[in-house]
Amino acid sequence: MSHWDTFKDFQKKQKAYELVLALAGWDSNTEAPRQSIPYRSEMLSIISGEHFSLMTDPQYKEAIDALYEEKETLNDQQFREVQKAKKSLDKIIKIPKAEYVEYSKLTTMAQRIWEEAKEKGDFKHFKPYLKKIINYKKRMIKFRDDKAIPYNVLLDDFEEGMTIERYDAFFQTIKDELVPFVKQVLAKSKNDDFPFLDRKYPKHDQKDFVDYITNVFDFDFNRGVVKESVHPFTWNTHSQDVRLTTRYMEDYLPASIYAAMHELGHAMYEQQIDETLDSTNLNTGASMGIHESQSRFYENTIGRSQAFWDTHFSALKKRFPDQLHDVDAETFTRASNRVEESFIRVEADELTYPLHILIRYEIERDIFNNGLGVDDLERVWNEKMKAYLNLDVNRPSDGVLQDVHWSDGMFGYFPTYALGSAYAAQIYYALNEALDIDQAIRDNDIARINQWFKENIHCYGSRLSPDQILNKVTRESFNPKYYIRYLKEKYSKLYLED
Amino acid sequence: MSHWDTFKDFQKKQKAYELVLALAGWDSNTEAPRQSIPYRSEMLSIISGEHFSLMTDPQYKEAIDALYEEKETLNDQQFREVQKAKKSLDKIIKIPKAEYVEYSKLTTMAQRIWEEAKEKGDFKHFKPYLKKIINYKKRMIKFRDDKAIPYNVLLDDFEEGMTIERYDAFFQTIKDELVPFVKQVLAKSKNDDFPFLDRKYPKHDQKDFVDYITNVFDFDFNRGVVKESVHPFTWNTHSQDVRLTTRYMEDYLPASIYAAMHELGHAMYEQQIDETLDSTNLNTGASMGIHESQSRFYENTIGRSQAFWDTHFSALKKRFPDQLHDVDAETFTRASNRVEESFIRVEADELTYPLHILIRYEIERDIFNNGLGVDDLERVWNEKMKAYLNLDVNRPSDGVLQDVHWSDGMFGYFPTYALGSAYAAQIYYALNEALDIDQAIRDNDIARINQWFKENIHCYGSRLSPDQILNKVTRESFNPKYYIRYLKEKYSKLYLED
Repeated sequence: MSHWDTFKDFQKKQKAYELVLALAGWDSNTEAPRQSIPYRSEMLSIISGEHFSLMTDPQYKEAIDALYEEKETLNDQQFREVQKAKKSLDKIIKIPKAEYVEYSKLTTMAQRIWEEAKEKGDFKHFKPYLKKIINYKKRMIKFRDDKAIPYNVLLDDFEEGMTIERYDAFFQTIKDELVPFVKQVLAKSKNDDFPFLDRKYPKHDQKDFVDYITNVFDFDFNRGVVKESVHPFTWNTHSQDVRLTTRYMEDYLPASIYAAMHELGHAMYEQQIDETLDSTNLNTGASMGIHESQSRFYENTIGRSQAFWDTHFSALKKRFPDQLHDVDAETFTRASNRVEESFIRVEADELTYPLHILIRYEIERDIFNNGLGVDDLERVWNEKMKAYLNLDVNRPSDGVLQDVHWSDGMFGYFPTYALGSAYAAQIYYALNEALDIDQAIRDNDIARINQWFKENIHCYGSRLSPDQILNKVTRESFNPKYYIRYLKEKYSKLYLED
Repeated sequence: MSHWDTFKDFQKKQKAYELVLALAGWDSNTEAPRQSIPYRSEMLSIISGEHFSLMTDPQYKEAIDALYEEKETLNDQQFREVQKAKKSLDKIIKIPKAEYVEYSKLTTMAQRIWEEAKEKGDFKHFKPYLKKIINYKKRMIKFRDDKAIPYNVLLDDFEEGMTIERYDAFFQTIKDELVPFVKQVLAKSKNDDFPFLDRKYPKHDQKDFVDYITNVFDFDFNRGVVKESVHPFTWNTHSQDVRLTTRYMEDYLPASIYAAMHELGHAMYEQQIDETLDSTNLNTGASMGIHESQSRFYENTIGRSQAFWDTHFSALKKRFPDQLHDVDAETFTRASNRVEESFIRVEADELTYPLHILIRYEIERDIFNNGLGVDDLERVWNEKMKAYLNLDVNRPSDGVLQDVHWSDGMFGYFPTYALGSAYAAQIYYALNEALDIDQAIRDNDIARINQWFKENIHCYGSRLSPDQILNKVTRESFNPKYYIRYLKEKYSKLYLED
């Protein structure tokens, strides 16, 4: 057997395990009855163990190392496959198995403790776990590359090619340009009042409208599913099976609509990947940031636009004639773009959102590079919240304890959220040169936009790096100026002009 | 490691693979998008292959053989576990792997060909496949036990302890007692007319009523799911995760109701198995026949009773006030028990149903024991249909081609359907001595019936054989006289008395 055949053989087996584990995960998150979890966890840990063995098999490692040696014999796509596989392998192969198992138990436990701490508003309860997790991460970074700048290792895990240097420049721009602009807008948005948002919207009719939207966005039901879950998410195993969920709040209509649109952005990306990539490890989006650029684009740029609601508000009103009798498309669009200072990231509007990420980025960077300790986190968090959003945090559940990520060891993940929005803006200006976005939306022809994304971004899966995609599509590397421009144009129009 | 520990270790791993394969199967049958199937099939065949290797591992076989040698060291439950495992092992271990793989491809293909043949009404198209399947089955029976009466091997696979001798006696009773009785009833039932059955019943309201029924039967949603599928089925991996589906026909209301009740019978059984058995291979029903006795009991004895509809018809009428405005509980009960001669087994009523099984039993027995050939099947089928149900079959889709079972090699399965109904009747008389079934239904307290089933049948899982269960519950072995008595009592009252 050639090294290439050995490599592909292992990859295929790994993909089989990934498929069944993914199906079990989909079931757990959307359908499994509550009491089925303990048995299922025990059984799935056996299957995960087999998967881990396949991923770290010495024969597999040998094949990858050999292919690296003879890389001139590989074509571009083959090399990219091996490169991605090597990166995944390097992440786990140097970690002693005992430490890996220990860490997996620690994070399972830490998530439960975090939930309790958040509920009680008691950061002290969570602190010892957070300290252990951070120590573990620091140790693992050393194992993997003891010459690297520590936080860079984590940043690159979530977004290939990103570094502190690049993120610092990005967030400095946000601080300089956005923080004062947000203050201007907030002074105006205080007067917003949308009483229709407080009315009751039955779930059954909301579901019907989500179906409507899914069709408007041209999602392919022959290769997908739309369902409900507590936390909305997109799930995919290959281009022929892409699923998304939304959540329904009867007392807050926008929740189901914009969560569905957000996930539709992720889902269209995955459905439009070239299906010949399904037999490789390249059959998923290029990176967290590029993925998030698509979800933000579909949600914010398309979904919250005046053009969208001029075209589809009547379909919404048909389902809620009583609740929306005194509302028009313009009011609904304004309500969908309301700016407010808020404590909670996941509830933040498009304009203040990056400031929430800024806080998390600076804290994570200082933990890993500058010795910021867990005992100082709450104080630092609250100071930044005051500086950037002018808010006084009164309880840690509204501050340092609000996100699940750290309890699962996901440091380096947050910045990709803001990066995704910024990518979306940069792509927006390129796309608008290629076709009239506003007109496509008004023609109820989102398929036109989908097609452009398919040809320029989606079809490649992860054959190209985030940088390569941006350069191909926008003819330059990542440049935060477009993001600032997009936000200022949009929110000046909504709030600062008369 | 002791033999016992080795045995349990393999069993646990096998159960892990069975869980993920079962979850994938649930997904395929209820949710997976159409185009996801080819990729999924390829990936799942890898996982199934791993499962097969675990089931036929020489170390596993060695442990089982050793435990058989030292069986005096095992307690009753341990011995039962080993006995069941050995039976599964013997079924596959002697079959050369190449033949096994070949056969699995053959039946996959044959099912597609059967579908086509059924659609075109062309038995010739399916014949060559059916011949190959039967030849394979005959060869496999020889591999497994070349001294056994061939059809007995298949009968025992689906119902431990059943033989031609016992089934012949059972079906002879049906021929002698039931065939003439059915003719008497059919002469009367010709005058039945229930025009309300032809009205339109929206799916959404039917779903609501199925929810209502599921609660009436006391199904535990913390350990279960109710969903929709084309062919209703029950699915379970352990007592804490039991799921059922029903199907909705807007032009035939009884379909969703009685399919749900039938599956609820299977589901209550699985939910009420002692959960300490979940770590063993005994955590599922005792046999096909005992399982079917429960589904038939819940569907026919409880669900189609006057007591049930006296208690719950108002709840049904509330959901369909227009469609049922001229119907009362008695009429609905009569319509639910309408007797008709019909070509199709799955649409047959409770009284004529066993005659459909009789035909299949006699044919299968004669194929495996008496040299009946595939070329004669259609003629023989049609002759029997005439003799037992007085119907002239005009197209094979209404006759020999109607069932999927043979295309999947499932010979020996059909008789358990009739056996299950007969078990249900025998159990019915025993249960009625222990508590007043009619009163429990009228008190809307089916939990009382559930509890009796739990204590006397369900909790044991497959720790006891079907014979042991019947003897425990009814103080005798299987005796078809109860079935005849039950049917004659019920249908005399409905049709032959004034």
